[in-house]
Amino acid sequence: MRQQTMLAPTLREVGAEAEMASHRLMLRAGLIRQLASGVYTYLPLGYRSLRKVEQIVREEMDRIGAQEVLMPAMNPAELWEETGRWDTYGPELVTLKDRHERKFLLGPTHEEVITDLMRNEVNSYKKLPMSLYQIQTKFRDERRPRSGLLRGREFLMKDAYSFHADRESLDATYQDMVDAYVRIFTRLGLDFRAVEADSGAIGGKESHEFMVLSESGEDTLAICGGCDYAANIETAQAGSTKGDSPGEADPEQVPQPEKVATPGKSTILEVASHLNVPSERLIKSLLFQVDGEPVLVLVRGDDEANEVKVKNALGATEVELADEATVLRVTGAPAGFAGPVGLKETVRIVADEAVQGLYDGVVGANEPDAHLIHVNPGRDFQVDQVADIRTVKEGDPCPRCGGVIRFTRGIEVGHVFKLGTKYSDAMRGTFLDGEGKERSFIMGCYGIGISRVAAAIVEQHHDENGIRWPLAAAPFQVHLIVVNAKKEEQARLANQLYEQLKDAGIEVLFDDRAERAGVKFKDSDLIGIPLRVIVGGKAAEGLVEYKFRRSGESGDLSAEEWMVKLPELLKRVDG
Amino acid sequence: MRQQTMLAPTLREVGAEAEMASHRLMLRAGLIRQLASGVYTYLPLGYRSLRKVEQIVREEMDRIGAQEVLMPAMNPAELWEETGRWDTYGPELVTLKDRHERKFLLGPTHEEVITDLMRNEVNSYKKLPMSLYQIQTKFRDERRPRSGLLRGREFLMKDAYSFHADRESLDATYQDMVDAYVRIFTRLGLDFRAVEADSGAIGGKESHEFMVLSESGEDTLAICGGCDYAANIETAQAGSTKGDSPGEADPEQVPQPEKVATPGKSTILEVASHLNVPSERLIKSLLFQVDGEPVLVLVRGDDEANEVKVKNALGATEVELADEATVLRVTGAPAGFAGPVGLKETVRIVADEAVQGLYDGVVGANEPDAHLIHVNPGRDFQVDQVADIRTVKEGDPCPRCGGVIRFTRGIEVGHVFKLGTKYSDAMRGTFLDGEGKERSFIMGCYGIGISRVAAAIVEQHHDENGIRWPLAAAPFQVHLIVVNAKKEEQARLANQLYEQLKDAGIEVLFDDRAERAGVKFKDSDLIGIPLRVIVGGKAAEGLVEYKFRRSGESGDLSAEEWMVKLPELLKRVDG
Repeated sequence: MRQQTMLAPTLREVGAEAEMASHRLMLRAGLIRQLASGVYTYLPLGYRSLRKVEQIVREEMDRIGAQEVLMPAMNPAELWEETGRWDTYGPELVTLKDRHERKFLLGPTHEEVITDLMRNEVNSYKKLPMSLYQIQTKFRDERRPRSGLLRGREFLMKDAYSFHADRESLDATYQDMVDAYVRIFTRLGLDFRAVEADSGAIGGKESHEFMVLSESGEDTLAICGGCDYAANIETAQAGSTKGDSPGEADPEQVPQPEKVATPGKSTILEVASHLNVPSERLIKSLLFQVDGEPVLVLVRGDDEANEVKVKNALGATEVELADEATVLRVTGAPAGFAGPVGLKETVRIVADEAVQGLYDGVVGANEPDAHLIHVNPGRDFQVDQVADIRTVKEGDPCPRCGGVIRFTRGIEVGHVFKLGTKYSDAMRGTFLDGEGKERSFIMGCYGIGISRVAAAIVEQHHDENGIRWPLAAAPFQVHLIVVNAKKEEQARLANQLYEQLKDAGIEVLFDDRAERAGVKFKDSDLIGIPLRVIVGGKAAEGLVEYKFRRSGESGDLSAEEWMVKLPELLKRVDG
Repeated sequence: MRQQTMLAPTLREVGAEAEMASHRLMLRAGLIRQLASGVYTYLPLGYRSLRKVEQIVREEMDRIGAQEVLMPAMNPAELWEETGRWDTYGPELVTLKDRHERKFLLGPTHEEVITDLMRNEVNSYKKLPMSLYQIQTKFRDERRPRSGLLRGREFLMKDAYSFHADRESLDATYQDMVDAYVRIFTRLGLDFRAVEADSGAIGGKESHEFMVLSESGEDTLAICGGCDYAANIETAQAGSTKGDSPGEADPEQVPQPEKVATPGKSTILEVASHLNVPSERLIKSLLFQVDGEPVLVLVRGDDEANEVKVKNALGATEVELADEATVLRVTGAPAGFAGPVGLKETVRIVADEAVQGLYDGVVGANEPDAHLIHVNPGRDFQVDQVADIRTVKEGDPCPRCGGVIRFTRGIEVGHVFKLGTKYSDAMRGTFLDGEGKERSFIMGCYGIGISRVAAAIVEQHHDENGIRWPLAAAPFQVHLIVVNAKKEEQARLANQLYEQLKDAGIEVLFDDRAERAGVKFKDSDLIGIPLRVIVGGKAAEGLVEYKFRRSGESGDLSAEEWMVKLPELLKRVDG
């Protein structure tokens, strides 16, 4: 394609709101433009890369026997009411009414629609297992869309769903999908990790996220240095229960609780310092609203309560900190002075495993400006449930091998779930098994954020001058540049090469613009096509220059040998 | 792909609401399923055909240098307020509010978004002409969705937009697009006509529709037998003004108007019969609301007023018949007794050209149960505008060559418009010309209903047993059927052919199901893959049978010669 007439508007600068490299560079290189917050137009260069990603995903889905379909964006509310998600999905759900006042939503995911399809069309185990996928525009009304394509409100997804007669079959397809995802992200040149993950609003029992490693990623990953354990911090298990509390040597010797004044000391640090005890001796008491009911959550003073783990431990769908009025009503004190001893209302108490190993602790006294010391769990208060509900920290022991947990950051580009029968039970999606018995489909679901993958590639593959596309996702394979289009021998040779490349089926962007060489090279660096071919001063001698965007390797080639050498150059261009 | 594990649920019958052949057959062959009124899921077979159509459209757009982009479905209301279409587009517009109560619509077309993009990104004539296109899901809240994919509420479109510095350039691109459309519909095996059309809500000066000829089409086309004139009846021009009125021989001799009683005679036929005059002598007076103002429209008694032509003649955006109260107020009589002489309120009067040639006519007397006879236009009433506002009839003279107009019916699959500066003026979409002067982009727009094309193909290519896909749009090229999968020699040979075909890159659907042969052949007829290959009783002799779905041609081939003959068979399969 000729650059002169192409819509590829490069920019020297973009606004400060574009913080992420991929956001900045995709704007600057003329790949995308924002239409509304979190809503983007893909310009020709951006759309070409997007379609490359899409095609690789399609090939790998087809390879494992998944069948491509296309479901509607408009989903009738009734289907989502069957699973309850119409009410529980939250304000991210984009809803609308048609002219007859019927309620619809724009699908952010399609479990309901596909389960409805399968319950209508498949009724025998003989058709199972079956995997279906689609590549489709999805809608999610993010509260604060940001980071360009990494978190948009309208975005391109691949979502796949599998249906099974038994667990073993689900396990096998789940593994096929994981393998396909590994091939997809490897083909796209990404440095990634599959990590254990929370299954969130989708539900289900087992789930893995595919994380592109990036300092600018939104997610924190807990990774073991000793084994291959890796998990999203949202869900990473804590290692073995921590050591004994550093208070009195013997829990039996701990005196009875005693109230001490802690005027205005409401944070862990303030209380620990005021009482001169280490923060590990404090029990942090947090009042949550769990599906509308207040629950007191206890973690050790040096730990943080993990809302996702609390939610999962309690089997809840919604967890949030209680408001001040509720705290005052339940505990009799403002936040910072709550504790498990002497609550004004009886509420459920859930303690982290590490709290159970603690004695001679310090807790809020449930009255303003006071704490209790010499508190023992079990003796001075009872706990309804003990669970792993703390957020892991760097340096914690690995839950699998005991090695040391380190943190890294990542961008979620894929997510696979074993759903089990959550949706098929809710929607009566059943089939007849070999004995003629009606059973619920066992399901899996598998997503890839296509547009997010494109951005993640840029996030991992760029330098200070612009993008460095891996060949597999590059908008073009070759960027042909004529240095001075007014010089006849340059123009003639460049046009000749352009036609040769097109005839050979090579995707070539031809910078035929009447711009200065410096502008052309800067734009070329920014756009980041892997192989650059420059027709300049040496055209008279029949020589052209090539340059790899990634490594900077360059050299001269005669116009004759050029087409012969091209395949080998393209093979090395990602190196 | 193996049919046993494919989601291809064929049906023997479908509900009576599926009236059109394409609707019925796409349901029966397992290509689509309805999720909500006018909202469909594409199953694997249907989606494969859809993508074939999409790819042919893409190739032909690329060939004429159009650049592919992808614009958001979510359009901010403000953009559509700039052109006024937020208010004028009507209830077909699907609208929603985001969580911050900002208004959006789901794009049924993208003139606003692309004009916004171009005014931001292109400011010089040097980048012009430029053509951009996208293939995208569109939304249109039809009042009465029907006919399956032919009129849905969520559908796949190709929409292209071109931007020009001058009219000549628009004309050239418009012709390129028309040529591309001809290639697209020809490649897809469609029998079609390009006809002159109304540009509707899109606006603009010149426009053509591409109509697939079909008795079941929604549109009526006026086609000349003598030349290549063809137009949608909505907009078809009337031929030369009709002959003289058959009343008094000389207009000068016509007596003064005279009131006659016509008790209860309110239709043309009743009045003509009661007064014993031919209906051509009557002047039909219809009160319309034109953009909110009453306008009296006059056509000859044997003609019909054409709302689209009235709208265009008056440069209006909305035209509808006035309600009874307005008729009574303006004319003093109920509908059926209105006329241009002695109105109670002064309103604009527009007359069809044929009314101007009429004298000694009959009109309503503007009082109940009375008409006036001996009425001459010009003498007895004045007309504000004379225009071609009648609907053409079969047998009318061709406006171009005077030949005879015949009617046929068609399905609109494409529409091209010369928009001019309608959108660029409204949105200040400008560029600097060669002299540095700011000028509005001159625009064209060009649509193809991708999903509608798929349905139109089925509408034209089917018989009583099912679909007969042309090769270019068929979900698979070959339908391989093993007659009895339990017979070892059949199963072995069929599996061998299946692998051979896949290795050769042939798209093959393999009916490996344990169904009776009759069921398999019926399903195969229904699905309509062009070339069927049957491995049956002769497998022991190493013979397979082939059959063309379209012509029924069949024969035996040895398994050895089979792959050699295949390319030639596929070449003939559409014949």
